Amino acid sequence: MSTNMDLQIIKTNIDQFFLVIMGMCIIFMQCGFAFLEAGAVRSKNVTNILIKNVMDSFVSGIAYWILAMHLPMAMAGKHRNLLYTFAATAATIVSGAVAERCEFIAYFAYSFVITGFIYPVVTHWAWGSGWLVDGHDYGGDIGQIAYQDFAGSGVVHVLGGVCAFIGAALLGPRIGRFQKGSNVIGNLRGHSVPIAALGGFILFFGFLAFNGGSQLTISSEGDGAAVAVSVVNTIISASFAAFGSLIINRLHIFGNTWSLLVTINGALTGMVAACAGCNQMHPWSAAVLGLFAAMSYTLWSTVMKKLNIDDPLDAVAVHFGGGITGVVLIAFLDKDDGILFNWDRKSGLKLGWQFAGLAAIIGWSALFSLLVFGILKCFGVLRVSREIEDKGLDIPKHNEPAYPVEAYGHGHIEKLIQ
Amino acid sequence: MSTNMDLQIIKTNIDQFFLVIMGMCIIFMQCGFAFLEAGAVRSKNVTNILIKNVMDSFVSGIAYWILAMHLPMAMAGKHRNLLYTFAATAATIVSGAVAERCEFIAYFAYSFVITGFIYPVVTHWAWGSGWLVDGHDYGGDIGQIAYQDFAGSGVVHVLGGVCAFIGAALLGPRIGRFQKGSNVIGNLRGHSVPIAALGGFILFFGFLAFNGGSQLTISSEGDGAAVAVSVVNTIISASFAAFGSLIINRLHIFGNTWSLLVTINGALTGMVAACAGCNQMHPWSAAVLGLFAAMSYTLWSTVMKKLNIDDPLDAVAVHFGGGITGVVLIAFLDKDDGILFNWDRKSGLKLGWQFAGLAAIIGWSALFSLLVFGILKCFGVLRVSREIEDKGLDIPKHNEPAYPVEAYGHGHIEKLIQ
Amino acid sequence: MSTNMDLQIIKTNIDQFFLVIMGMCIIFMQCGFAFLEAGAVRSKNVTNILIKNVMDSFVSGIAYWILAMHLPMAMAGKHRNLLYTFAATAATIVSGAVAERCEFIAYFAYSFVITGFIYPVVTHWAWGSGWLVDGHDYGGDIGQIAYQDFAGSGVVHVLGGVCAFIGAALLGPRIGRFQKGSNVIGNLRGHSVPIAALGGFILFFGFLAFNGGSQLTISSEGDGAAVAVSVVNTIISASFAAFGSLIINRLHIFGNTWSLLVTINGALTGMVAACAGCNQMHPWSAAVLGLFAAMSYTLWSTVMKKLNIDDPLDAVAVHFGGGITGVVLIAFLDKDDGILFNWDRKSGLKLGWQFAGLAAIIGWSALFSLLVFGILKCFGVLRVSREIEDKGLDIPKHNEPAYPVEAYGHGHIEKLIQ
Repeated sequence: MSTNMDLQIIKTNIDQFFLVIMGMCIIFMQCGFAFLEAGAVRSKNVTNILIKNVMDSFVSGIAYWILAMHLPMAMAGKHRNLLYTFAATAATIVSGAVAERCEFIAYFAYSFVITGFIYPVVTHWAWGSGWLVDGHDYGGDIGQIAYQDFAGSGVVHVLGGVCAFIGAALLGPRIGRFQKGSNVIGNLRGHSVPIAALGGFILFFGFLAFNGGSQLTISSEGDGAAVAVSVVNTIISASFAAFGSLIINRLHIFGNTWSLLVTINGALTGMVAACAGCNQMHPWSAAVLGLFAAMSYTLWSTVMKKLNIDDPLDAVAVHFGGGITGVVLIAFLDKDDGILFNWDRKSGLKLGWQFAGLAAIIGWSALFSLLVFGILKCFGVLRVSREIEDKGLDIPKHNEPAYPVEAYGHGHIEKLIQ
Repeated sequence: MSTNMDLQIIKTNIDQFFLVIMGMCIIFMQCGFAFLEAGAVRSKNVTNILIKNVMDSFVSGIAYWILAMHLPMAMAGKHRNLLYTFAATAATIVSGAVAERCEFIAYFAYSFVITGFIYPVVTHWAWGSGWLVDGHDYGGDIGQIAYQDFAGSGVVHVLGGVCAFIGAALLGPRIGRFQKGSNVIGNLRGHSVPIAALGGFILFFGFLAFNGGSQLTISSEGDGAAVAVSVVNTIISASFAAFGSLIINRLHIFGNTWSLLVTINGALTGMVAACAGCNQMHPWSAAVLGLFAAMSYTLWSTVMKKLNIDDPLDAVAVHFGGGITGVVLIAFLDKDDGILFNWDRKSGLKLGWQFAGLAAIIGWSALFSLLVFGILKCFGVLRVSREIEDKGLDIPKHNEPAYPVEAYGHGHIEKLIQ
Repeated sequence: MSTNMDLQIIKTNIDQFFLVIMGMCIIFMQCGFAFLEAGAVRSKNVTNILIKNVMDSFVSGIAYWILAMHLPMAMAGKHRNLLYTFAATAATIVSGAVAERCEFIAYFAYSFVITGFIYPVVTHWAWGSGWLVDGHDYGGDIGQIAYQDFAGSGVVHVLGGVCAFIGAALLGPRIGRFQKGSNVIGNLRGHSVPIAALGGFILFFGFLAFNGGSQLTISSEGDGAAVAVSVVNTIISASFAAFGSLIINRLHIFGNTWSLLVTINGALTGMVAACAGCNQMHPWSAAVLGLFAAMSYTLWSTVMKKLNIDDPLDAVAVHFGGGITGVVLIAFLDKDDGILFNWDRKSGLKLGWQFAGLAAIIGWSALFSLLVFGILKCFGVLRVSREIEDKGLDIPKHNEPAYPVEAYGHGHIEKLIQ
């Protein structure tokens, strides 16, 4: 066999190796989401949130395989198997926002629609051969300009965040969260900080694969460097976002404490924001991006509370807030043609395309998630009964209390009680 | 240096890189097993099950290094270091089935024998240069036919499942599990659903490496594609098995609830079943396989209860049930010469060899695990005393209660009690 | 493009791929440390220890990027991004030793100084272009001899261990740990064995990347083999250290129980000891090393208690104890010029350089950590007040109890109480 063919074989193989290992790490993010969410709910709803997260991977596996396979458009562009792993992420964002009150059957409905329809269409637009990836040819010095979204700040996270917003709004808040005619917000604390922190750590790990893996190949010139830059920028953005959130929350108006959960959410927001252009940024731009992400997180978290929309995980603030920060700021921070580096008509048009992409993604996902959640609400299968919500979903729906009392003893609780 | 030598060096290196990273992920499966098992036992036995799982990796490390090193036969075929990681899996399957009542010293005995003897011999047969890998030359159009077991549905999982069955049967059920003259089965619930789910998620991740890594090389033509196909088929099989199990368990006769633990076990069964031929299947075959795996899991789980054999983890149903499904069905579903695609003498003989392999593996592992567990039972070192079982193993054996009551307080339990 | 250039591109890319994936796994070790530490503290201090571990990655990200970027010396030698991940490890070792009583603001101070100054200087000495990496040219048959520390037994772990020792000594023991005029040691048990075990498992996984990844490249001749050897030796050393610790602790004088936590710490000590020369050892040398590591762990753990220095995690015993074992024993066990293989002036000088390196690292890190912790103590910001220590740090400092009592119920604790 000729050396050239040999080389080609190696290139093909290491690309596939790269995608497999990155894809595995992205699938593992599902575990991260599961525990971030499980720690943030009360003990009576833990099994319910876990089964949703377990099923997310498998629902996406089936939905993507059955539905998206017949949408040939989604196949172009990004590697199909990696897209599947991203689909699960989009669906899982929603499960956080609708936690502790959503019917199990409604969960199946929206997951299938998001992973099998809403999301594949947007990937076609932005990563396949659709209008967002094509952009428009402005001729002359400017040339082709298109929507830029390397790892999906918009395609995955804004989309998921919008669906989460609609879902949470149509479901209504959990009992005890908001009191009519009062500004006091019920703090329905999650049941386990370590479980939530475990989820956060796993997501920090997985996000590096999410953003690094979006390069899709490792065999061509510059691939390795691009992957490394993406990973480093993701870390820097997360670091500054974590610090920013920690400090903002330490201010008096936000409660004057060093909050772990806010720090974790802040870091995640920084990673979400990095998705759009972590491959096209200087490290200091990533630092700036992280600080903006921290502010965006705090802003959207506050907005949600003002709107009396109950999002137990702050999923909208993290994913929608981080996503739009990333999509918009890359038009300023792109090291080649960002507005800060090159203020001309070209970079202005670029910003325009980012807004166009955002508008399309928000409009599309809002429309169809309104439809899905609206229909489910009309048929009365969106929200569990008040009685079940009070009692918790684990025992009535799953007959699996997360911590069955009869399984404890001998050194644990009895001693205390005696 | 010539280009050809350079190419050869790169090929060697990326193969080793591939094996190292896959091996690491497979070793991490040990963590998955540990938590799946820890969540499924009562709080009084958590430390005991965890130390067994921690030691599994290290016992295998030593046993495989000392014993198997001197069994040169085991060295051929599959890469030795990867085999070591598979050995730990075989041993760990057993610890689930004998949980909450097995002596610590008995654990050491059976682990050493399984990882250092029972398992290496079978790997020699099926993956080294033994009779199962050689098969038989039927001449003419048919040619060589041999036992097919890509990632070890039989070699690892049926073997582990048989040892688990024998161990659980000889140990007898936990106190309170089965009542004489009654069909009511005591539901000795595990103490923590999230801990079990964590184990499940980690195993989902690790299994992709287990099945994908079994390709062993990544540098030759088609390797990358084979690895990707294996991983995708493993996911599809798991997805359909998870759904299948979830739905079957939702039926009235099985309790009418959406069970998380059943879903996790179902998905794992689907992955176990995929081991045998995930590299040689169409996606839809993997879907079919997953559905059969779900049924096999339910069947074997029921059989175990009917036999009054107490398997706290359903390890036999997952590994034995999934393993035989995989070994047998690949004779039907193999895309080249499976019975469904090519019904002739060749595919019939192939099925015969799958049965021969199964019979050999079951016979061999049954014989020696009977011997090991039998001897341990004769010497009275197999099962802890009734008193210790009642009290839990953690304090008498390890002096490390999993959740020491004196370590809690200040915002947790006291408030409630006051 | 010529084949040679193509080859060069592939080599560059797979090297970067290797560093990215190994770096990701090393970053994930932060999760391992977090949970090892969280399980080992009481429930009232869990959020506090977790936020420190979450911030470690991000503090290192910022410190290393801002400070070390301007120390060009640190850039040479080892790959910069991998160094960052090692920096986080050095800082995190300290957080274990000072757990449950250290001020949050003091944590920031020492973390920045360690990751931004103490550690980068040592990496320059030993891995960059400093005096330890240069060594001395003895001429003749002997030639250049230098300090050997492949993955940082000394550079990372002895350094971290010394800072941990100084920090714990200056802070003083937790309330209730040591009684004046009594030899009875208060056993302030950690609150969750499974959480600690989770941390251990993750560290076992991450350490393989830590040691294997220290090869830094995968594209040159012998790289793959070196990485594989490093990983295998790390596993063997850990296996024997785990067994050794388990057995030593089973002896009557140490309590006569099978301790899980000791086994985990023992295995980690074996891995720490393997850092220095896992790429230059025969497997049986790794076994010997593991046994010495087990003894060193027990020794240093005992010494710390005798000195009445309170190290809740045994971090000093694991990292300092394991680190010096590794640095010293590699002079005996190196397969090319270790004293056991080649007793001559060369191997003697080699041992001398190992001691010189140790002395320099210990002196340097002791000096500056004394300075940092001393200054913090003078200003009264090192240790929390007695009242807060009693109450636990989580509520006063973070307003986030790890297990908020109001989040539990319905099947968990109430039933028991009623």
